Amino acid sequence: MISNKDKKYIWHPFTQEKTAPDNITIVKAKDAWLYAEDGTKYLDCISSWWVNMHGHSNNYINQKLAEQAADMEHVIFAGFTHPKAVEISERIVGKLGPDFHKVFFSDNGSTSNEVALKMAFQYFYNQGKKRAKIIAFKDSYHGDTYGAMSVAARNEFSKPFEDNLFDVYHLDVPTKDNFATVKKQLKKYLSLNDCAAFIFEPLVLGTAGMVMYSPEHLQELMEMCSSVGVLNIADEVFTGFYRTGKLFSHQHLSKAPDLVCLSKGLTGGYLPLGLTVVNQKIYDAFYSDNKLKAFFHGHSYTGNPLSCAVACASLDLLEKQESEDNIKRIVQKHKDFAKVLATKKEVSNVRQQGTILAFDVNTSGKDSYFNSNRDKFYNFFLNKGILMRPLGNTLYLVPPYCTSNSELDLAYNAIKSLLNQIKKGSLTV
Amino acid sequence: MISNKDKKYIWHPFTQEKTAPDNITIVKAKDAWLYAEDGTKYLDCISSWWVNMHGHSNNYINQKLAEQAADMEHVIFAGFTHPKAVEISERIVGKLGPDFHKVFFSDNGSTSNEVALKMAFQYFYNQGKKRAKIIAFKDSYHGDTYGAMSVAARNEFSKPFEDNLFDVYHLDVPTKDNFATVKKQLKKYLSLNDCAAFIFEPLVLGTAGMVMYSPEHLQELMEMCSSVGVLNIADEVFTGFYRTGKLFSHQHLSKAPDLVCLSKGLTGGYLPLGLTVVNQKIYDAFYSDNKLKAFFHGHSYTGNPLSCAVACASLDLLEKQESEDNIKRIVQKHKDFAKVLATKKEVSNVRQQGTILAFDVNTSGKDSYFNSNRDKFYNFFLNKGILMRPLGNTLYLVPPYCTSNSELDLAYNAIKSLLNQIKKGSLTV
Repeated sequence: MISNKDKKYIWHPFTQEKTAPDNITIVKAKDAWLYAEDGTKYLDCISSWWVNMHGHSNNYINQKLAEQAADMEHVIFAGFTHPKAVEISERIVGKLGPDFHKVFFSDNGSTSNEVALKMAFQYFYNQGKKRAKIIAFKDSYHGDTYGAMSVAARNEFSKPFEDNLFDVYHLDVPTKDNFATVKKQLKKYLSLNDCAAFIFEPLVLGTAGMVMYSPEHLQELMEMCSSVGVLNIADEVFTGFYRTGKLFSHQHLSKAPDLVCLSKGLTGGYLPLGLTVVNQKIYDAFYSDNKLKAFFHGHSYTGNPLSCAVACASLDLLEKQESEDNIKRIVQKHKDFAKVLATKKEVSNVRQQGTILAFDVNTSGKDSYFNSNRDKFYNFFLNKGILMRPLGNTLYLVPPYCTSNSELDLAYNAIKSLLNQIKKGSLTV
Repeated sequence: MISNKDKKYIWHPFTQEKTAPDNITIVKAKDAWLYAEDGTKYLDCISSWWVNMHGHSNNYINQKLAEQAADMEHVIFAGFTHPKAVEISERIVGKLGPDFHKVFFSDNGSTSNEVALKMAFQYFYNQGKKRAKIIAFKDSYHGDTYGAMSVAARNEFSKPFEDNLFDVYHLDVPTKDNFATVKKQLKKYLSLNDCAAFIFEPLVLGTAGMVMYSPEHLQELMEMCSSVGVLNIADEVFTGFYRTGKLFSHQHLSKAPDLVCLSKGLTGGYLPLGLTVVNQKIYDAFYSDNKLKAFFHGHSYTGNPLSCAVACASLDLLEKQESEDNIKRIVQKHKDFAKVLATKKEVSNVRQQGTILAFDVNTSGKDSYFNSNRDKFYNFFLNKGILMRPLGNTLYLVPPYCTSNSELDLAYNAIKSLLNQIKKGSLTV
């Protein structure tokens, strides 16, 4: 059995290896489905950690990947370039609009954020200004490398590393009730005159538990920052590529950020790739006859042609009418199901942003990422052949866009069945 | 022209965009050669930033990549596993030997080092001990994310970010002359009782300028660390996969490190993938009924099946007699050429470790990554169709293992021609 060898050799991410059940061995994946070694199949309702766009193992993307591999698998990206890096950059800048200017490549979401943070610091450094602080939401998540961790939430996950994280100014996520206070917090931070940037997940804080907040609030905070020269960094690693209904989440606002970080859906769920896209002001602060003003950051596989080819192929599919129709269809199906959920006493805080649907299951105790309800829910759905991955007592759906109405109904019905069991008392939470 | 669009849309790594020449557009790569849009071809003597093993666009790896894509491009790696992740883990642990136990996946060299550092800190944290300091070589390079930058050299590259880097204890790289002093430095650091780990590039500090040091010195430093419970982290991102003549560079020693970080050559030069491989002691410190003792680190594409499949295919090729013969052949060719170089007055410090050959060109002024000699050398070779990428006045060869004797001779002859021009005074350095 492969799973025995898995247990012998592999240490899995975000997993207590002693108490976790055996990992399920997936031997094949197609469209919205994962096929296990034992013949079971699972509907992937979380797009495999929010990355998959067009379904698994897509024939068109596979063909484009093979074509690129036949031409060139990789070339150093300092001093050299290649057609697919140029194509993805031109297309992404085009889609982001005239506020955006240049694309910097890295390997994943965490690095795309590290690049943005480093650019923000050096933007001021190159002008002889000292700005070493970042403003970030208290509950945010931006990745697991040190810079990304530093600007994210301080919680149980970060405790072992806290001595070496750098200090940031943490803002509460704005709500109708607290917005005046949040603005006061921000005003205080800005008055200290040592902030380089404000980094945020626009409209949806994913890992925090699909926490949603309004574009008007975000826009006001961004404007407060830019009015005193503090840069705005939109971490669109999760929210990009129509997750929130628009191509990019910040496009719900009338104001553009200075830097945008992209990953996850960028390659359609195929390969790690990160992009940090910047406006002209940022780029110009590094453009100099002084070599020391350059941005000295790179990874061995920066601009990897295979990842770029796959990202271009994913955009080809995203631009098809079929994808647009699918996204609209999922948004509407979620809306209809959200109405059903709103009638249920077992849930609260039903919320939706585009193709992301989330709600909290009412439980008796204190909820966290670690409590047993999370495991109960996870297993309940798994036993029904549905892959969901609750965040504490928050359940959510982030399906690949190829997911059909009947497949969505499978997930909705499983949720109704869970809530019914809670109602009947056959599942205690 | 693609290069015009490149200039319009792309910000390249480690590049002063204003003064750098136009990037060369590569449209095809095969074996040791890169083919440009304008018909020029370049011999890739640096394996495209030290990653390529078997030559570009290898038919066998391409086939294995396509097979994996047809089966499954990706699946979430928390709660799930897949055959190629298991296969690469079993094979890598087997090759590392009985001191090693478990494999943790990430996306590149920088993240593999961040994972190792975080594991080292949490190893102590989980035992209720506070150890927040790292020991590292003063001139080392471990990547460009904040944790990796923190433990690496402080220099012009790190200046804009220094306010937010964490403090480390920096050791001089040992030489015959300074070794007593280095041991004294280390003894002092260890006496402070707050160190979690010693991180090092075993035997060759790549980015520092192919600085080489002896296995005996490293082994003694490692033993000093382990005698007081400080963990040893071998950053084999560059040195792994026969670069130093042995499969892993630390295998030149009789003592194994506690953690080994792998990337670059791991996928044969195809795709970003990082592995952090640990001994049982590390793993056991996280293995608990307490969920909070888990290692909470992950990336969306952790354990990506395409990268794993390509890594397995690269190992298939590495295990062939042909690869072994090629590596031995390159080591011997380098040895012979090193003897030729040693007779030249224009160079000093000729050094070799396995397939890595390096030497310094004697120049009149102060040398650095930034000075004009570096650019002169780079362009000299490029004009001869040879891709080398000097580190200041240090020239080096790190060829793909498929590079033939006559191709190596092309590079050697270009070097001789450069030295001859310097000798004649037609190139001033």
